[in-house]
Amino acid sequence: MSVVVTGTPRVPPEILRAFAAFGVATVHEAQGRTGLFGSHMRPIYPGARLVGAAVTVSVPPADNWMLHVAVEQCQAGDVLVVAPTSPSDAGYFGELLATSLRSRGVVGLIIEAGVRDVAALSEMKFPVWSKAISAQGTVKETLGSVNVPLVCAGQLVLPGDLVVADDDGVVVVPRRSAGAVLAASEARERKEEAIRARLKAGELGLDVYAMREALAKKGLKYQPAAAED
Amino acid sequence: MSVVVTGTPRVPPEILRAFAAFGVATVHEAQGRTGLFGSHMRPIYPGARLVGAAVTVSVPPADNWMLHVAVEQCQAGDVLVVAPTSPSDAGYFGELLATSLRSRGVVGLIIEAGVRDVAALSEMKFPVWSKAISAQGTVKETLGSVNVPLVCAGQLVLPGDLVVADDDGVVVVPRRSAGAVLAASEARERKEEAIRARLKAGELGLDVYAMREALAKKGLKYQPAAAED
Amino acid sequence: MSVVVTGTPRVPPEILRAFAAFGVATVHEAQGRTGLFGSHMRPIYPGARLVGAAVTVSVPPADNWMLHVAVEQCQAGDVLVVAPTSPSDAGYFGELLATSLRSRGVVGLIIEAGVRDVAALSEMKFPVWSKAISAQGTVKETLGSVNVPLVCAGQLVLPGDLVVADDDGVVVVPRRSAGAVLAASEARERKEEAIRARLKAGELGLDVYAMREALAKKGLKYQPAAAED
Amino acid sequence: MSVVVTGTPRVPPEILRAFAAFGVATVHEAQGRTGLFGSHMRPIYPGARLVGAAVTVSVPPADNWMLHVAVEQCQAGDVLVVAPTSPSDAGYFGELLATSLRSRGVVGLIIEAGVRDVAALSEMKFPVWSKAISAQGTVKETLGSVNVPLVCAGQLVLPGDLVVADDDGVVVVPRRSAGAVLAASEARERKEEAIRARLKAGELGLDVYAMREALAKKGLKYQPAAAED
Amino acid sequence: MSVVVTGTPRVPPEILRAFAAFGVATVHEAQGRTGLFGSHMRPIYPGARLVGAAVTVSVPPADNWMLHVAVEQCQAGDVLVVAPTSPSDAGYFGELLATSLRSRGVVGLIIEAGVRDVAALSEMKFPVWSKAISAQGTVKETLGSVNVPLVCAGQLVLPGDLVVADDDGVVVVPRRSAGAVLAASEARERKEEAIRARLKAGELGLDVYAMREALAKKGLKYQPAAAED
Amino acid sequence: MSVVVTGTPRVPPEILRAFAAFGVATVHEAQGRTGLFGSHMRPIYPGARLVGAAVTVSVPPADNWMLHVAVEQCQAGDVLVVAPTSPSDAGYFGELLATSLRSRGVVGLIIEAGVRDVAALSEMKFPVWSKAISAQGTVKETLGSVNVPLVCAGQLVLPGDLVVADDDGVVVVPRRSAGAVLAASEARERKEEAIRARLKAGELGLDVYAMREALAKKGLKYQPAAAED
Repeated sequence: MSVVVTGTPRVPPEILRAFAAFGVATVHEAQGRTGLFGSHMRPIYPGARLVGAAVTVSVPPADNWMLHVAVEQCQAGDVLVVAPTSPSDAGYFGELLATSLRSRGVVGLIIEAGVRDVAALSEMKFPVWSKAISAQGTVKETLGSVNVPLVCAGQLVLPGDLVVADDDGVVVVPRRSAGAVLAASEARERKEEAIRARLKAGELGLDVYAMREALAKKGLKYQPAAAED
Repeated sequence: MSVVVTGTPRVPPEILRAFAAFGVATVHEAQGRTGLFGSHMRPIYPGARLVGAAVTVSVPPADNWMLHVAVEQCQAGDVLVVAPTSPSDAGYFGELLATSLRSRGVVGLIIEAGVRDVAALSEMKFPVWSKAISAQGTVKETLGSVNVPLVCAGQLVLPGDLVVADDDGVVVVPRRSAGAVLAASEARERKEEAIRARLKAGELGLDVYAMREALAKKGLKYQPAAAED
Repeated sequence: MSVVVTGTPRVPPEILRAFAAFGVATVHEAQGRTGLFGSHMRPIYPGARLVGAAVTVSVPPADNWMLHVAVEQCQAGDVLVVAPTSPSDAGYFGELLATSLRSRGVVGLIIEAGVRDVAALSEMKFPVWSKAISAQGTVKETLGSVNVPLVCAGQLVLPGDLVVADDDGVVVVPRRSAGAVLAASEARERKEEAIRARLKAGELGLDVYAMREALAKKGLKYQPAAAED
Repeated sequence: MSVVVTGTPRVPPEILRAFAAFGVATVHEAQGRTGLFGSHMRPIYPGARLVGAAVTVSVPPADNWMLHVAVEQCQAGDVLVVAPTSPSDAGYFGELLATSLRSRGVVGLIIEAGVRDVAALSEMKFPVWSKAISAQGTVKETLGSVNVPLVCAGQLVLPGDLVVADDDGVVVVPRRSAGAVLAASEARERKEEAIRARLKAGELGLDVYAMREALAKKGLKYQPAAAED
Repeated sequence: MSVVVTGTPRVPPEILRAFAAFGVATVHEAQGRTGLFGSHMRPIYPGARLVGAAVTVSVPPADNWMLHVAVEQCQAGDVLVVAPTSPSDAGYFGELLATSLRSRGVVGLIIEAGVRDVAALSEMKFPVWSKAISAQGTVKETLGSVNVPLVCAGQLVLPGDLVVADDDGVVVVPRRSAGAVLAASEARERKEEAIRARLKAGELGLDVYAMREALAKKGLKYQPAAAED
Repeated sequence: MSVVVTGTPRVPPEILRAFAAFGVATVHEAQGRTGLFGSHMRPIYPGARLVGAAVTVSVPPADNWMLHVAVEQCQAGDVLVVAPTSPSDAGYFGELLATSLRSRGVVGLIIEAGVRDVAALSEMKFPVWSKAISAQGTVKETLGSVNVPLVCAGQLVLPGDLVVADDDGVVVVPRRSAGAVLAASEARERKEEAIRARLKAGELGLDVYAMREALAKKGLKYQPAAAED
């Protein structure tokens, strides 16, 4: 059942570049609140951020052999997305693999397992989102697959899909809808810009979003605090 | 059952200012080891710190409508304290709401749920303590309440109570006892100052705190390590 | 059953100094993937790092009396390793104890429980690995033991053992095998240095580690992505 | 700060008896979805169930001394509600304390910590809801309080409040509103009885609850599955 | 984005019946160790077991409106598979919905959220696998979707797929491969039957599986225990 | 580093038989509150119970090869105690291995990982304490060790040590101190028998244990509840 799929199509580079302007929360909203990875996926340093095209890797528990296989399938602008077939916190990935990926132009790693060498990775500014940090090593005994459909942190990721990750988490955008989600993200951002200015000036969200009538209709009551002695 | 209580009394501003000198651990000790929120409440950036008067908000799961309602009830020196009626990790709060709160002088947020836009919030230095970080959006469908008694992270918070938060966590001080706890915090700090100097100079806590007799009475024995070959 | 063992032998200072060059992941590999603490043990600030000789402390839940007893048993180059007899997240340790330990030359703390004053500890650059951060205070009522064999975060630690900790976690090396593990760490580091250079230059791990034959033998297949419409 | 409050008023026995007909889910709904303990509170055997008047106990971590103090304050129909001041999984309670409570007519225990002797407790049919099961013993060193306001598993419990617990969890009803919640529970049960009969007969909830119009208004669309080759 | 897909094809009834002979572990092995739900999905009573065709439901957090919509799409032999778009432990499902589903021949429920009325559900022998048990109610405010591809507990489920669940957990088999997995399950079971007899008779797995040579080749050493004084 | 130690001495059979009368809580107390496994180790069915001599097995993550090796080292009265070198929830053990162990007179399994076939194991009344239940299979690729010192669920277990397990958890007693702990368990049980009779007759623990003076000395105060309107 182990296979490496080669030559998978990716979301185009100009789309990747355009998404650099948008955060995970914006993209997640812009595509109808779908595609968000579980919140246990955390960046290894604050301020980490990436946009890339997914190379997916299904790995056995505590066995990182397939990561070496996957490196060869990577090109500039890719992000490695890795999930084990059974839960594992072992340290699948460290500074040597990051050095190898960077030499190919890979922008980062998303892994629902553990990583190590995080001091070195942070210094290199190689962004990683993981479930755990652990120095525990892995073996190279069992095969997995590269560029097959993958469920990672509760989301389905197909090879070539767009992945955006920042301090808020990780979101996947299907390759074919990336253009539409880009347009929706831009629209959302423009709208928020106008609202931000009004809120900064002291206007209330209740008025900016015209919520008062709906609240009253639902039955919201205001009552003064009881007098005190 | 939804209500917004208006005009609630707050702990006075001069008390808020005086508490700026004390950390959560000191305040927690000074009021007899009560009022500490559960340790799952973590700041979104290191060094975050606040002292404020609580505006409490009870919210439905994954619905942030009441936060917009609560903003109008806030004044300078307040801190929003939010808990959902059923557990939720959704991202109730982000940069737009922070912008709105800051324009009213609100000093930060304590929420037993998720927040998002944490990169922007960190850059704004808007301090937040939360249970989770998640880009997952919320809806605006169901009412909750503002300025009612609230259990948040295992503690009872009444509107107007004093809240102190730092890297160690979050503690609530009942409004009416804030003055007494302030005095006790000052006394504790003075005492610790003297002890700190002695410990720094190399004296042992065993002597500084005069523990040797009590330890011996409890039966503590000293024995040399076994000789090795 | 409470005892303080005095005059325990330690791993020698020159060994401690030599280990300063190696991270937890390297040491863990060099001693055959043993000795790693559970990944719930996290540093209180990024970049924390230490090498020390273990002074072990077995403490009752939420009672830090024995930490004061342990301080007297510490000498320069030691690290305090603490585990409670029943799980506890209470804040056993803060800035005053750190001040006292530092005055004796202790290099840091490993504790499978909570700590507090983390802002102050971070400013002092006193490195701590803990299971929790909590302002919750402890009592001084019940005895424990110092310098007895201790299970901490799933590992057996004997007094005088070598402990290395960094952003990746914590590893213990038995005192008597520290010399051998040092040699193995140096060998591993040299080997990795050569590999790092080749990977940085763009060579693939598949070739550097000569994995292609073994993968083929296990049955790995490559197949081109399906054509798209 | 330790105190034992004596002679606290309880919810009357006839109210306790009347609640025997209702489960936790019904009572929770009937009082507006408030008062539910966190779902980490689980019964030690399936089918456990109780209705009682709360005797509250605030205990130190891993110290069960106050449980012995609390027994004396109990009368027939009471339930002990216990929470530690800092999280603890220690086994505070076992078969001897259960024997003592039963001899006074106490109907069970709710404890946000650990219990032990669960085989014996199950055989006695002494119902307990706890956060953990652990043989770990506790000490008798530090005072706590009995019959003070208590936050347990995220809910505020006052002495004398009504507590209902079953396989679904634990709910608290404030003493003064117990009569009203009883009436609402009865009304809810009657309404559900009629609905149950219709659903059993094969009618759809969509029709029984008349939801079709509201769903259509929100924009729900039906579409046939794509044809397959 | 809300849609109800009608008339989805299901795995055929004769296949469902044939799978009744096989447990989750067998099916999971027979399809190459894929399709297993996360181990946090637990049955509400011991001995629960089902085989069914999936009707998938994507629900908002703490909102069970779509379950009522889904009932109408169910037929005999179906199993409801439900996941929320953001994590929720609320009690989406209870005895009334089970009554409605049973009247249509639905065989059970898999839900990555909470359920309630578990005493009644257990008495009805209506099998449910869930992430939590909670009396917390839900609202009916927001739409979701029925019979769309769904990620539940880490696995991708398509409408009409085969689901097997027992005390060991939950596994999904893609509809089109159900026949092949059935054959593989039968083959595996036959093979295990022969092995079971040999092991029961006292033969060692080392010999039954002929492992001794491979172990020796990997370097396994036997050594007698050290003599004792 | 892989080794199978043969012919390890065990705690004698007559000691094993004598411990059958005592529960985990009693034994844990009788040996000074040491040796208790973490409370995440739970029996797979209620009422499970065993006393045995430990055969220890250190296994790689998600690899159960060494269990087959360990079977050969077992004799009547033994219990298998298993821990992985890195955390794993995979299902290492099922009905076939249990059949094999039972044919040799092994009394049960303690494993800090996952097991499967729990319905069959429960029917066989083969007692197992585990960290997880999961149908996820394991591989047979990497060696481990049998009858070496093992840390399992936070406790050090040596081959031949006595293990007692019941609904309250698991406790290990060092082989050489088993006789002394047996005597202490018997003494404790006799003492509790007398206390049980007094408590059953309605005497208070406050009097049976003569606690009143110590409580008063610590400062315990009694105060009547405030009068109500």
